[in-house]
Amino acid sequence: MKVIQKINNALAQNQVTFSFEYFPPRTEEGVENLYERMDRMAGLQPLFCDITWGAGGSTADLTLDIAIKMQNMICVESMMHLTCTNMPVDKIDKALDGIKANGIQNVLALRGDPPHGQDKFVQVSGGFSCALDLVKHIRAHYGDYFGITVAGYPEAHPDAITSEEGATEEAYHKDLLYLKEKVDAGADVIITQLFYDTDLFLKFYNDCRQIGITCPIVPGIMPINNYKGFKRMTGFCKTKIPAEVANALEPIKDDDKAVTAYGIHLGTEMCKKILAHGIKNVHIYTLNLDKSAFGILQNLGLVDISKIRRPLPWRPPTNINRAKEDVRPIFWANRPRSYISRTVTWEDFPHGKWGDTRSPAYGAYADYQFLRRRSRNKKIQEEWVVPLNDVKGIYELFANYCAGKIKSHPWSELEGLQPETAKINTKLVEINSKGFLTVNSQPAVNGERSDSPTVGWGGPGGYVYQKAYVEFFCAPEKLDKLVEKVKGLSSVTYIAVSSKGETRANIGPNDVNAVTWGVFPAKEILQPTVVDPVSFMVWKDEAFQTWDAEWGSLYAEDDASKKIIQEVKDKYFLVSLVENDFIGGDCFGFFEDL
Amino acid sequence: MKVIQKINNALAQNQVTFSFEYFPPRTEEGVENLYERMDRMAGLQPLFCDITWGAGGSTADLTLDIAIKMQNMICVESMMHLTCTNMPVDKIDKALDGIKANGIQNVLALRGDPPHGQDKFVQVSGGFSCALDLVKHIRAHYGDYFGITVAGYPEAHPDAITSEEGATEEAYHKDLLYLKEKVDAGADVIITQLFYDTDLFLKFYNDCRQIGITCPIVPGIMPINNYKGFKRMTGFCKTKIPAEVANALEPIKDDDKAVTAYGIHLGTEMCKKILAHGIKNVHIYTLNLDKSAFGILQNLGLVDISKIRRPLPWRPPTNINRAKEDVRPIFWANRPRSYISRTVTWEDFPHGKWGDTRSPAYGAYADYQFLRRRSRNKKIQEEWVVPLNDVKGIYELFANYCAGKIKSHPWSELEGLQPETAKINTKLVEINSKGFLTVNSQPAVNGERSDSPTVGWGGPGGYVYQKAYVEFFCAPEKLDKLVEKVKGLSSVTYIAVSSKGETRANIGPNDVNAVTWGVFPAKEILQPTVVDPVSFMVWKDEAFQTWDAEWGSLYAEDDASKKIIQEVKDKYFLVSLVENDFIGGDCFGFFEDL
Repeated sequence: MKVIQKINNALAQNQVTFSFEYFPPRTEEGVENLYERMDRMAGLQPLFCDITWGAGGSTADLTLDIAIKMQNMICVESMMHLTCTNMPVDKIDKALDGIKANGIQNVLALRGDPPHGQDKFVQVSGGFSCALDLVKHIRAHYGDYFGITVAGYPEAHPDAITSEEGATEEAYHKDLLYLKEKVDAGADVIITQLFYDTDLFLKFYNDCRQIGITCPIVPGIMPINNYKGFKRMTGFCKTKIPAEVANALEPIKDDDKAVTAYGIHLGTEMCKKILAHGIKNVHIYTLNLDKSAFGILQNLGLVDISKIRRPLPWRPPTNINRAKEDVRPIFWANRPRSYISRTVTWEDFPHGKWGDTRSPAYGAYADYQFLRRRSRNKKIQEEWVVPLNDVKGIYELFANYCAGKIKSHPWSELEGLQPETAKINTKLVEINSKGFLTVNSQPAVNGERSDSPTVGWGGPGGYVYQKAYVEFFCAPEKLDKLVEKVKGLSSVTYIAVSSKGETRANIGPNDVNAVTWGVFPAKEILQPTVVDPVSFMVWKDEAFQTWDAEWGSLYAEDDASKKIIQEVKDKYFLVSLVENDFIGGDCFGFFEDL
Repeated sequence: MKVIQKINNALAQNQVTFSFEYFPPRTEEGVENLYERMDRMAGLQPLFCDITWGAGGSTADLTLDIAIKMQNMICVESMMHLTCTNMPVDKIDKALDGIKANGIQNVLALRGDPPHGQDKFVQVSGGFSCALDLVKHIRAHYGDYFGITVAGYPEAHPDAITSEEGATEEAYHKDLLYLKEKVDAGADVIITQLFYDTDLFLKFYNDCRQIGITCPIVPGIMPINNYKGFKRMTGFCKTKIPAEVANALEPIKDDDKAVTAYGIHLGTEMCKKILAHGIKNVHIYTLNLDKSAFGILQNLGLVDISKIRRPLPWRPPTNINRAKEDVRPIFWANRPRSYISRTVTWEDFPHGKWGDTRSPAYGAYADYQFLRRRSRNKKIQEEWVVPLNDVKGIYELFANYCAGKIKSHPWSELEGLQPETAKINTKLVEINSKGFLTVNSQPAVNGERSDSPTVGWGGPGGYVYQKAYVEFFCAPEKLDKLVEKVKGLSSVTYIAVSSKGETRANIGPNDVNAVTWGVFPAKEILQPTVVDPVSFMVWKDEAFQTWDAEWGSLYAEDDASKKIIQEVKDKYFLVSLVENDFIGGDCFGFFEDL
C-alpha cells in the first residue's frame, strides 16, 4: 500500500505513527544482522521502513534486494530511496520495474549526494539533474502506481547554505518553493532532513502550509548515538546545533552510553514537542540500530507491546500482489518465510488456493533460511548438535524446547515458542518426552475477544476461535496405538505420512479444515489458518528434509548421533492432528495414556 | 443426484430410506393441492419422489412441469416416468432434454400401458416397443447423465399373466430374464409393481439375485385407502390378494376409515417383514395422499420429526446445477421459492455469488407464488384484508402474526413462524406493536450443538451460530431515533432504504455479513446465510412491492384501508439490522426504549 494511504488511514483514526530508515550494510554479515534487527523492529508495527540508496548509486543492487526482502520476507511496508546520481533513465526504470515486480509501491525520490570523492553533484548523461525531474518521470511513466516521497529541508538544502548562520532568507524561500514544485509534480509525502532545533522544524512546517503544501510533512529524527558520528553527520548536512544540545553533549562526549541516553532523552523531547503541535507522524533515522529508536518510542508510549494487535494470526504480507491473502495452511506457521518463498509465484490469493477447485502448486523448498542464517545455525549447533545415545536423546531435545530450556528449533524460523503456546507448554513437554516429537501446535480457543493480547487478532469487536492442533513425528508403533484410540473419538481427525509416502488418515484428501477463525461485525467469517491435506503432502517433504538439512548435516560425517537422526527420519511418520471439538475436546489430554 | 448414488450413500450408513410416488392431477386446483402436499411430505426427507407419465403420454407436459417443480421448487430429488406409448424418439428426447436442462437426473423407463380405450400396447412409428429399448436409447444418447430406474414385476408383467393362478413358471422366468436385460442395458435401480403378498416379493427378490441382478430392488407398497380403488387397481394389475387380506377387508369394505386404518396396518406389517430381510428401501405409491404413507412410516419409526435434521438452515436445492450452492442472503428466508426463481439463471453457486468479486444479478420478481396460490390468497384475504382505521391497525396485524394469532403473512411463503423464532416471539410482538413491522428475524445462537432440533443443521459433531437479525419496515422518525441509538452501540450494523431508494447505513455497500455459520470436523467454516447489501437492494423492491401486490390489491379499489397501506409503503423505510455480538448482545432488547 502507498504510504500516503497508510498515513491517511491512521489520521482518520487519530493514530500517531512512526517509521524507520535503514542503510545498506557493507558486509554480508552486516546485512544478515540488519534483517534480524528489522524483523524485531517490524514487530513494533512501524508504518513503513525505508532503505537508502548509497551515494552515487554505489549500493544499487543491494538496496533493491533489501527493499524486496523487507517488503516480502519481513512483511513491512517498504520504501526504496532512488537518486539521480550516476543514473541514466534506463537504470532508473530498471530499479523501479524491479520493485514494482516485487510488489513495492513506495519510492523516496532524491537528487542524491555526489559519489564519494566528488565535491559536487554532476548530472549523468541521459539522467536527471534534480529530484523534481525524477518525480515527474515517475509519475509520467508509472502513473499512480507509486507513492512518491520527497525530502524537505527545514534549514534549506545544504547546497543553499553558504555561511555558519545558515541559508539566507531568500535561499530558504527558494528552497521552499522548489519543495512545492516537487509536491505539485506528484510527490505525496515529505520527510524532512534531520534537525535538532525543533522550533526550526515547526517554522518550516508552518511555512510549507503557508505556501500551499498540504501533504503530510514527516519530521526526520536522528537519535544521537555517538558523538563523533553526530558531529560528522551534522557537519555534512550543515545542521544547526542548539546551544543547549551542544552544552549537554560537551561534558559526556567520550562516554558513548551517556551520549546514547542523552540522544534518547533529546529525541523524546523533540517528538513530544512535535506531537503537541498536532503532527501525527515521526520518522526515525535508525542508523541500523534499534536501541535509541525503541527508547524514544517507548518514552512516547507508542510501542506498548500489550497494545500491539495482530491483524491476522500470521504477519500479513505487504506486497501489493498478496494484499488479498487471507488464509494459509498451518504447517508453515513457524516457517513463514519458507511459505512466502514457496508461494511467491502465485498470481492470486483470494482464499489462498483454498475454497475453490484449483490445487496449490508450491515452489521448490529453497531460500527458506534467508533470515539469520549464520546466527541461527550457530544456535542450532550449540543447542541441538549434542551427542545422542539413542532416540531418547532426541525426545529430550524436543521436550527441552517446549520447556523453554533451549530457544532454537530446526523446524522453526522463529525464536522460542509463540506466546499463546504458554497454555499448553507443560502438556507439550510430556507429549515430546513420550516420543511424539512436536513441530507445530496451537491450543483450542473458544470465542475469546479479538483484542485478547495472547490469542487475539483482527482488531476489536470480534471473537476468535481455534481448534487445538498438534503436529509431530512419531514411530509407526506409536501411530498404530494412536489410530486405534482415535477410532473412539469422533472429533479427532488426522493425516499421517512417512518419508516414503505411506499415508494413514481418517479424512479425505480434499477435507480442508479451518483451525483458526474469527467472527467480526459486518463481515463474513475470517478463517486465516487451515489444515489442507494437499498442502500437507508438500510440507511433509520439507519437514522430513529438515531432519538432515537443518540438524543431521551439522554433525561430523561419521558421528553416531547422525545415524540415529537418519533412522528416525526414515522410520517415523509425520502426523497432523486436529481436535475438532474446540468447546468440549482436549487434544492434548488425549496423549496421556498412549 | 442419481437415486442409485443416494441409495448407496444411505446403505453405507446403514440407513433405511423411503420414497413417494405421485400422479399428475386432472385439475389445476388438484395440481396446487398436490404441490402443497408434496411440500409437506418433502419435510419428511424422502430419498426421492417420482411422478407418473399418464397412460399414452396423456399428461406429458404436466408430468414434465411437475417433475421440474418438484426438483427445483419443492427441492426434493425427482424422478420422472417415461413410457414408449405414443412417443416417437424425438418426443422422448425432448422430454429427456427438458428435465436435463432443469437439473433432473432420474428417469423411470417403462413400456407403458395402452392409452385409455385401447386394449393392447401398440408400438408407435419411430418409437420403441419395450422398456429395454428405451433404457438402451437413454444410455446411448445421454451416457451416464441419467440414473435409470426400471419396473420389476414380482408376479410377472400383467401381460404374461394368463390365468387366475398367475403367470406360469416359464412366463415368470422369462419376465425375470427380461428384467436382467434391462439392468444389463443400463438400469441401476428396480422398483417393483405393487403387491400384497410379501412372500411373493421376497421370492422374487431372491430369484433376481440368483440370476445375477445385483442392483437395489425397491419394493413398491400401495397402501389400501379405499376398497373400490383397491379392487380396480389389483384387478388391472392382476395382483394376487392373500386370503387374509381379502378376509380382513370384506367386513369393513364400506367403511373408508376402517379400510384406511387397515391399509396402514397392512403396509406396516409388509414393510416390517421386508426390512427384517435386510432390504433397506421402501417405495410408497401415495396415490397423492399423505395420511397412509405417513402412518406407515411413523409405525416404522422412520419419520420421527425430532430426529429429522436439516443439512442447511434452508432446504438445499436438489437441482444438479445448484448442487454446490452453500450460501444465500437472509432476505428471502421466508420466500425460498421466490429466491430460487430469481436466481434460476445463475450458472454457478460456488459461494452463492459472494466471497468473490462478481455481483449477483437477480432475475425479475416473478413466479414467486407458485405454491398454494389459491389457498394462500384465501388465507391472506381472511386474516389480513380487514378494515383499517389507521397505521395502528397495521401494527396490530403484524403483532398478531408474531403472537401466532394469525398464520399467514404477505411477506412469507411459509405458514406461521419458524420453530427457532419461538425464542423471540414475545419480543417480536412488542417490537411490532411499536411500529417496527418485522418481516424476517432470527435469534442469536452461540455455539449450540449442530444436532439441536430447533437451531441445528449440518448433522452431528459440529457447533452452530447465529447473529441476531431483524428486518422491518418503520416510519422515518422511528428510523431517526434508531440511527441515533445505534451510534452508541458498536456491535449493531444496519442498512435502511425507502421505496424511493433513499438509503441510510453504517456499513459499506460490499460489507457482506455472515449471520449463520457452523463449525464442523475437518471442514472450512460453513456460512450458509449472509446479509449482503447488494442483494438487499434487489430484495427491497420485492419487499416494497409486496405491500400492494400481496395485500393492498386484495381490498376493493376504493377501500380506505388500501390507502393507509399505500401510505405506509410510500413513507416507511425497510431496515435490515444485525446485532453482531452473538455472545453478549441483545438485538431485541435494543428496541425497548425506542
